[in-house]
Amino acid sequence: MTEIMQELEEIVGDRASASPGERCCYTGDASQIVGMPDFVVRPQSTSQVSRILRLCSKKLISVTARGAGTGLAGGCSPVKGGLVLDMSGMNRILEIDIENQQVIVEPGVVAEKLNSALKPYGFFFPPDPGSLAMCTIGGMISYNSSGMRCVKYGTVRNYVLNLEVVLADGRVIHTGKKVLKSSAGYDLTRLFVGSEGTLGIITQAGLKIAPLPNTRKLILACFDEAEIAGQAVIEIFSNGITPSACEILDRTTLQVLKLCDPLLAIPEEGDIILFEVDGTESSTSEAAGQISEICQITAKSVRIASGREMDSIWVARRLVGAAISRLDPTKTRIYMGEDVGVPIKEIPALIKKVQQITTKLDIPAMKYGHIGDGNLHVALFIDVMIEEQWQKLRLAADRIHRAAMELGGTVSSEHGIGLVRAQYLPEQVGTETFSVMQSIKNALDPHGILNPGKMGL
Amino acid sequence: MTEIMQELEEIVGDRASASPGERCCYTGDASQIVGMPDFVVRPQSTSQVSRILRLCSKKLISVTARGAGTGLAGGCSPVKGGLVLDMSGMNRILEIDIENQQVIVEPGVVAEKLNSALKPYGFFFPPDPGSLAMCTIGGMISYNSSGMRCVKYGTVRNYVLNLEVVLADGRVIHTGKKVLKSSAGYDLTRLFVGSEGTLGIITQAGLKIAPLPNTRKLILACFDEAEIAGQAVIEIFSNGITPSACEILDRTTLQVLKLCDPLLAIPEEGDIILFEVDGTESSTSEAAGQISEICQITAKSVRIASGREMDSIWVARRLVGAAISRLDPTKTRIYMGEDVGVPIKEIPALIKKVQQITTKLDIPAMKYGHIGDGNLHVALFIDVMIEEQWQKLRLAADRIHRAAMELGGTVSSEHGIGLVRAQYLPEQVGTETFSVMQSIKNALDPHGILNPGKMGL
Repeated sequence: MTEIMQELEEIVGDRASASPGERCCYTGDASQIVGMPDFVVRPQSTSQVSRILRLCSKKLISVTARGAGTGLAGGCSPVKGGLVLDMSGMNRILEIDIENQQVIVEPGVVAEKLNSALKPYGFFFPPDPGSLAMCTIGGMISYNSSGMRCVKYGTVRNYVLNLEVVLADGRVIHTGKKVLKSSAGYDLTRLFVGSEGTLGIITQAGLKIAPLPNTRKLILACFDEAEIAGQAVIEIFSNGITPSACEILDRTTLQVLKLCDPLLAIPEEGDIILFEVDGTESSTSEAAGQISEICQITAKSVRIASGREMDSIWVARRLVGAAISRLDPTKTRIYMGEDVGVPIKEIPALIKKVQQITTKLDIPAMKYGHIGDGNLHVALFIDVMIEEQWQKLRLAADRIHRAAMELGGTVSSEHGIGLVRAQYLPEQVGTETFSVMQSIKNALDPHGILNPGKMGL
Repeated sequence: MTEIMQELEEIVGDRASASPGERCCYTGDASQIVGMPDFVVRPQSTSQVSRILRLCSKKLISVTARGAGTGLAGGCSPVKGGLVLDMSGMNRILEIDIENQQVIVEPGVVAEKLNSALKPYGFFFPPDPGSLAMCTIGGMISYNSSGMRCVKYGTVRNYVLNLEVVLADGRVIHTGKKVLKSSAGYDLTRLFVGSEGTLGIITQAGLKIAPLPNTRKLILACFDEAEIAGQAVIEIFSNGITPSACEILDRTTLQVLKLCDPLLAIPEEGDIILFEVDGTESSTSEAAGQISEICQITAKSVRIASGREMDSIWVARRLVGAAISRLDPTKTRIYMGEDVGVPIKEIPALIKKVQQITTKLDIPAMKYGHIGDGNLHVALFIDVMIEEQWQKLRLAADRIHRAAMELGGTVSSEHGIGLVRAQYLPEQVGTETFSVMQSIKNALDPHGILNPGKMGL
């Protein structure tokens, strides 16, 4: 141990630690999964990361990379001990290249900071997870994050042009180029996107950026039942309309929002869909009109909001995940079964199944999420001091995961597999497909030192 | 040989052949690279493909998959003999699912046929290579094809949701789901996209489709020099405008088009950029106005076209590659150095370099292509009977490839590496990155039977 600490100090000076206090700060993410690392290292350059990995490879020390720790799947929890690589110190925006519509960043850059830097140029980085204000680009790439606007703009996968990656043995590779398209060899860039730190450590990324739309408008449609709301969404997409966001907030979610902000201009009852459209003034008016028209057939009420009213609704929407404690302060939200996704057509069926599951188990649930791309966030909350409630929660989460898979869907749309969902991956993808993932893992990380155990690999 | 033919006949009946006549039909694609296969097999189902691969794996027979043979990189040329797997017989559109905005197709479906089938629903499959009328979806996936509208809509990579793939040993795997987004394990779907048949044989694909735009408008801007045209493109993108196509046609290309159709409404002199914008009536008018305004600063002339005039210009544009023989019937276009791409900002520099190279070597060249995503097609044409002209051509192509790499670009934007560009891949991506590609190839195809030699793997 002391010998390894010495070697680490040679590489990063005082940015390595084995003190219990520091190690305790790096036990996990925003899920309930924890593990105690043996070392914490905060590198500041690619060459430091490379030297650290060469050392860990030689000594067979596990390496778990960590961004802001906002993950929800235990992805950066060092469950096999070893070394946590805190990448948040590599947080420089290296280049803003408007003419090429791209930026080069280090992995520790916080997403919102990137957007603040791009705003004066009239550009933005479209993926917008709920944790936008805290999460790092490196974490977003590692979990293929998305968020509300992905329904129009796509996930992180669509925005990574190139990567610098340090492999398990310390070799530094570069994938992709500064070009917007290329057909030259295997798409290693996208192999690393979503690989959860199990194939290499991302030390730099070239990202595509997009022009900020001139105008945004919000359509609030309120329905008697979430299932009917789901049908309206299908109808809108079938008509060839692509909103820039399409979110569902069920009645429980509305209650929570009202408790947080009694003045918020949202309906009192029912389940609502928020459609956002963006573009030019005229095109947004046109699309907003079409959406209203379709919703009016089945909705209780439809309303168009813009400007400050729209902003306040979005702020509230972003707080939903955290605000849930207002409903019952004795209960805590547990992130399990919270990120399933299905084909759009199956959304009404998924909503119905989730309702049945939570009602039968008598477990409070809030349903919200990115219904436009089939991603339903189910917030289950329990009194964590009562073991029986934990049992019900685990059962509910398991049934929700299985319901999504039965409907041809995925156990995770944007939060990742990590440890929380590792047991479902072989089932979802099939054992043969899973074995291909394993053979790729073995090819790139033969000693299995990179984030071991995650995704079941 | 006879024994293998017997086994093949057991699998596919009379859809296997070893006759010299049939084998001759399968020697290559639209490039100059040829090879003679030992067998030709035309499977009709996944299970047939699986059985064929199990046989080939056991007997160590090379397998080269082939779609329509429209490739330009020698990708389906069986240069190591073995078996050509003609996938064009697996050409069923299995499902059109408008509510989920996706289709399921077999790999032999011709792209234009898919679009014809989607048109009544108001949808389309956006990637549009020049060979749209002939090329197959399987080929498009294997080379990550794109085309004119990729500048707005993205390449094939963005449209493949899931794949059925037969691995070298005959195992059948499924990647992805019917969901629009998923963060569940390695992105094997995109690993197969662009892998040129070296990792597995695609037997089925789930594709995302997009709503057809209501309106399209075309802006023709004519410039004194191609370099100035390139600057105007950069200016438009920096202003946050995303055209649905952005094509350059240099003065030689214009001459060719005029020879083909003297009535075509295009300028007589200069280099032109065709900008297409699509969307609603109002948004296209707005964008067309903005583009015209920016171009007017440096252009000789700017004009907006729509309807039949626009259609006739696009038809002519699509014929460019083939029409080149009109300029000089003794010369043939050779597809080498024809698909380079650079960051948008470097387009003027690339155009200048290409001009210098072709002028110095005194080799006729037509420059056209998807300038909006940095992809310049250089059409070099020579008298193929004169060896000296071949030498000049090879030198010109080599210099063009190196010029693109020096500008941070790619030797192939959309045609693929195949054999034509295999020598450049390690140089472009770096030897360490190339070795990662090799280790993935070894992991999935340990005996190297799948399309051997392609991409240098």
